[in-house]
Amino acid sequence: MPAPDAWLDAVRRHVDAQLDEFFAASRVEMLGLAPEAMPIVEAVEALTLRGGKRLRPAVLVAAFSSVSASGDWRSTADACAALELLQTYLLIHDDWMDGDEQRRGGPSVHAALRDRVGDAHLGASLAVLAGDLASAFSQRLMVRASTAAKSPVQALEAFVRMQTEVVCGQSLDLLATTDVPRMQQLKTGSYTVAGPLRLGALLAGATPEQLGVLEAFGGPMGEAFQLRDDLLGTFGDPRTTGKPSGNDLRAGKRTALVLEAEQRLDADARAPLTRVLGLKEATDTQVAEAAALLVESGAKAGVERRLDMLVQQAVGALDTPLLHETGRAMLQTLVEALAVRDR
Amino acid sequence: MPAPDAWLDAVRRHVDAQLDEFFAASRVEMLGLAPEAMPIVEAVEALTLRGGKRLRPAVLVAAFSSVSASGDWRSTADACAALELLQTYLLIHDDWMDGDEQRRGGPSVHAALRDRVGDAHLGASLAVLAGDLASAFSQRLMVRASTAAKSPVQALEAFVRMQTEVVCGQSLDLLATTDVPRMQQLKTGSYTVAGPLRLGALLAGATPEQLGVLEAFGGPMGEAFQLRDDLLGTFGDPRTTGKPSGNDLRAGKRTALVLEAEQRLDADARAPLTRVLGLKEATDTQVAEAAALLVESGAKAGVERRLDMLVQQAVGALDTPLLHETGRAMLQTLVEALAVRDR
Repeated sequence: MPAPDAWLDAVRRHVDAQLDEFFAASRVEMLGLAPEAMPIVEAVEALTLRGGKRLRPAVLVAAFSSVSASGDWRSTADACAALELLQTYLLIHDDWMDGDEQRRGGPSVHAALRDRVGDAHLGASLAVLAGDLASAFSQRLMVRASTAAKSPVQALEAFVRMQTEVVCGQSLDLLATTDVPRMQQLKTGSYTVAGPLRLGALLAGATPEQLGVLEAFGGPMGEAFQLRDDLLGTFGDPRTTGKPSGNDLRAGKRTALVLEAEQRLDADARAPLTRVLGLKEATDTQVAEAAALLVESGAKAGVERRLDMLVQQAVGALDTPLLHETGRAMLQTLVEALAVRDR
Repeated sequence: MPAPDAWLDAVRRHVDAQLDEFFAASRVEMLGLAPEAMPIVEAVEALTLRGGKRLRPAVLVAAFSSVSASGDWRSTADACAALELLQTYLLIHDDWMDGDEQRRGGPSVHAALRDRVGDAHLGASLAVLAGDLASAFSQRLMVRASTAAKSPVQALEAFVRMQTEVVCGQSLDLLATTDVPRMQQLKTGSYTVAGPLRLGALLAGATPEQLGVLEAFGGPMGEAFQLRDDLLGTFGDPRTTGKPSGNDLRAGKRTALVLEAEQRLDADARAPLTRVLGLKEATDTQVAEAAALLVESGAKAGVERRLDMLVQQAVGALDTPLLHETGRAMLQTLVEALAVRDR
């Protein structure tokens, strides 16, 4: 009997094959249209193909399978690829805004293009264009996906809504909003969990009741995903996360851990944390002290408790005959991939 | 009897009303979603509403009317508004890339946001996000427009194709391609003439034959539009164009005028032109000398002859029973607005 998460590998392989095919066609198209712009296509392709987990397609496929009894999830390949290109678009723009030089174990797109052309502004400009091209690519795939959808207009609307929400979330992040949970929900939850769930469900022609169940699952799962991200960003093993230890602290991210510590400690007691927060040149010892404080104050345990509660809430929402059994089992395995992962 | 271009005013008023309504709804939505991100919406709105000519919607409406005998062009309002928001998106990103501080008689978006937040990189980041939001807005309008379209999937594909082509064109521009006509065709012709024509035609359910006629009209018209732009960018009256005299020369644009002069003059003879090209601090006298050289060499007259020829070619393409009379008359009046304009 195959492991319950064997389908995740099947989705990954299927999406990767679809992306390979799409980029092969896009290169041919670009050769005819504007061969000198090929480095832009190559930058989009390199970043997209370096992304390994294909988590958002998996969420889409599980939602599709929970609504469609007979439909083959392989028919959603275009929509899955559209989600990956949407993420490429957003990552390219975000990395330039945030000044991140690394992404998915390689240079971020603005860094790679800057080094290629030898000019920071030109590199950044070409990176913004690469993001814009990835956006056009993702729309093209999504329009193609809509032709096979049971609710095509609603599916396209869901795709656009994700974009609006992510842009708002990133704006709140740049403007250093005090409403961090709202920012995270818009910036990450929206296009990682809630959006792909809605999209998969609408491709399969979900009823409003089914959409409601998936929302009740997706809301807490989105927040749980973010909390796991926060925990990994401070306590994760750099060898599995691929990000330096204490990354979030040095970047000054006001994560759930930091917010929880601020509620539990007065200004004096949290001085070792405050000092490190946003200090790019903080030493490893200083970072370790701040991390220890997050443990001793009970902030880490508090966040873990909240995460457990959210997972239970999400799993509880799946206990309904409105969703098909196959899809429900897939959504169950996603809980692990989204909220209990170590990278 | 109304003037033959009275419909242009009607289109402008109708599109403006549609945009007003869209932004009123978007503000309400943003208040609920992320009130702190309101400045981003306001920046998108301000630039969009400052654009006066609504030329692209007029092209769309004329194409729609040339294909649909009975359809009311007012039903294309969403698609028209989508074109304007697409342009807002592209202008915002381009202005930041090109370092243009002014647009449509006001500050460009990155300049306005930089001054508001007091930081160049944060201002640029928020501007890129404003462009991304305008893109999402334009997609939303276009999805809505597709529900009333006779060929919805093809219309959506045409909308995406415009984006791909413009991004390629802007990439070629930034990479200083030597294939200037190709660059201009992709960067401007595509989403100013060919794209809106195709979109309007597909909203009305055009046949392949009708699409072919409109392409035969749109190809030369797109190039003619660009040539008029080039002529105005050097010889236009700053009081009507709203741009400083000699703007293109100081910006170093390799316009059709410059290319024509290079064919007509040897390196020595064109020294006064070469000296000014791309020299931001060129004096008015130097610019006037370069402009005089463009006249004396016959470059200006050569470009004007080519423009006349393209206009005749475009008008000739309209001489077919495949298009309805009303729409053909509208396309005729557009020739004036696109290729014989003084601003």
